[in-house]
Amino acid sequence: MKRTLGKVYIVGAGPGDIGLITVKGLKALKRCDVVIYDRLVNPKLLKYAVKAKELIYVGKERGESHRQEDINKLMIEKARQGLIVVRLKGGDPMLYGRVGEECKALRDAGIPYEIVPGISAFQAAAAYSEIYITHRKYSSSISIATGHEERGKKKVDLASLAKAADTLIIFMGASKLKEIIDELVTGGLKTNTPIAIVQNASLKEQVIIKGRLRDIAHKAEKAKLEPPAMIFIGKAVANMPRKPWFKCRILR
Amino acid sequence: MKRTLGKVYIVGAGPGDIGLITVKGLKALKRCDVVIYDRLVNPKLLKYAVKAKELIYVGKERGESHRQEDINKLMIEKARQGLIVVRLKGGDPMLYGRVGEECKALRDAGIPYEIVPGISAFQAAAAYSEIYITHRKYSSSISIATGHEERGKKKVDLASLAKAADTLIIFMGASKLKEIIDELVTGGLKTNTPIAIVQNASLKEQVIIKGRLRDIAHKAEKAKLEPPAMIFIGKAVANMPRKPWFKCRILR
Repeated sequence: MKRTLGKVYIVGAGPGDIGLITVKGLKALKRCDVVIYDRLVNPKLLKYAVKAKELIYVGKERGESHRQEDINKLMIEKARQGLIVVRLKGGDPMLYGRVGEECKALRDAGIPYEIVPGISAFQAAAAYSEIYITHRKYSSSISIATGHEERGKKKVDLASLAKAADTLIIFMGASKLKEIIDELVTGGLKTNTPIAIVQNASLKEQVIIKGRLRDIAHKAEKAKLEPPAMIFIGKAVANMPRKPWFKCRILR
Repeated sequence: MKRTLGKVYIVGAGPGDIGLITVKGLKALKRCDVVIYDRLVNPKLLKYAVKAKELIYVGKERGESHRQEDINKLMIEKARQGLIVVRLKGGDPMLYGRVGEECKALRDAGIPYEIVPGISAFQAAAAYSEIYITHRKYSSSISIATGHEERGKKKVDLASLAKAADTLIIFMGASKLKEIIDELVTGGLKTNTPIAIVQNASLKEQVIIKGRLRDIAHKAEKAKLEPPAMIFIGKAVANMPRKPWFKCRILR
């Protein structure tokens, strides 16, 4: 007898604050049989997976990208058992979430799936720190890059991105901050360009480090900056209110 | 006797699919006394505002930007009456949502507020059309611009944004498509650059128009393209699967 196929929901968990998951994402989580979740997912979300018999952690540590294939296999295997799978990813799966690779594997295997977008860390960091990344007066364009580039790929030119757009946002840049600053300044950005780093966006541990390209590395070191963190560069940073609505530590 | 101040929640409603509002946003909607909502909010969301005595529509039509001041006054007035106000905006208020102006007005008036981010139309369009805006193999950077620029402001250089980033995303470009294409081609983009337009993202009326810079205007005219629509340009478009998981009309 042929077993009915299950289905995979690739769900964005949002950033830290668990209230930032979507209603659709939470619904999938409540009804699923299996959760396959990543490192950047807030573990408090897992308690909503009330029917799930398995909660499988597949958090990739840096450099272990070969495990992507194992994750694909796992999703396919569970769906072939007729199970409803939630593949839970931090932030928005469409932004640096490898959703293209996972969907391709599911599609090739004939497994039905849906993508449920999530609030990205950059959105939470902007909203909870009041960095107005678009503003009629000073920012009508944004560029987004990753500070943690895949080896072998043509390198992103951060300075060009910063010059083309009013606001530059960098994901996963905390551990390479000095290289990023060097690249931007060598590429022609002024050393007094405003920059802010938001660590643990939307969590009570949120910290904002504000500065200029010339002094931010020193400030970040003093503050013992650690991932996950989002970096914002441009006028939007200069126009932040002194204290955002969300109470958090601010280092200037 | 001094009346207790209310509070304003600036909430992103997400794009079309009402399941894409956040849990936190829905909670605020369920508890509030007043909803002040915009044109791009799905009206089906309003039924969740079960305690609200007033649902106030402040949909701005194009060009009527002077009304922003009236909206600010309205929020302040309601909060001063001790009411809990949800200021409901389509998509993510942080992206082209004038949240900076509204927060400044609230702050200046001493009104407490919170920002609840929402799923932006670009995220829904990408997820529901399977446009992998980031992908390890071909897209590690994104730029975002608006096709509907405020008059008098320094104009965004769309071609530079497209050249600096792997994927260019344009908001509110449907009504100016020909000008946008002209600008990109004049700016040096090849006429065979892949482009996709997603209209009514995440709704059952979603339509995807796929083409190249040289033929997209013609296709869009034939398809009677209307706002709201998101435009995607670059390799990510070339790598879309032929049919996304979300069933919708696709014009090639």
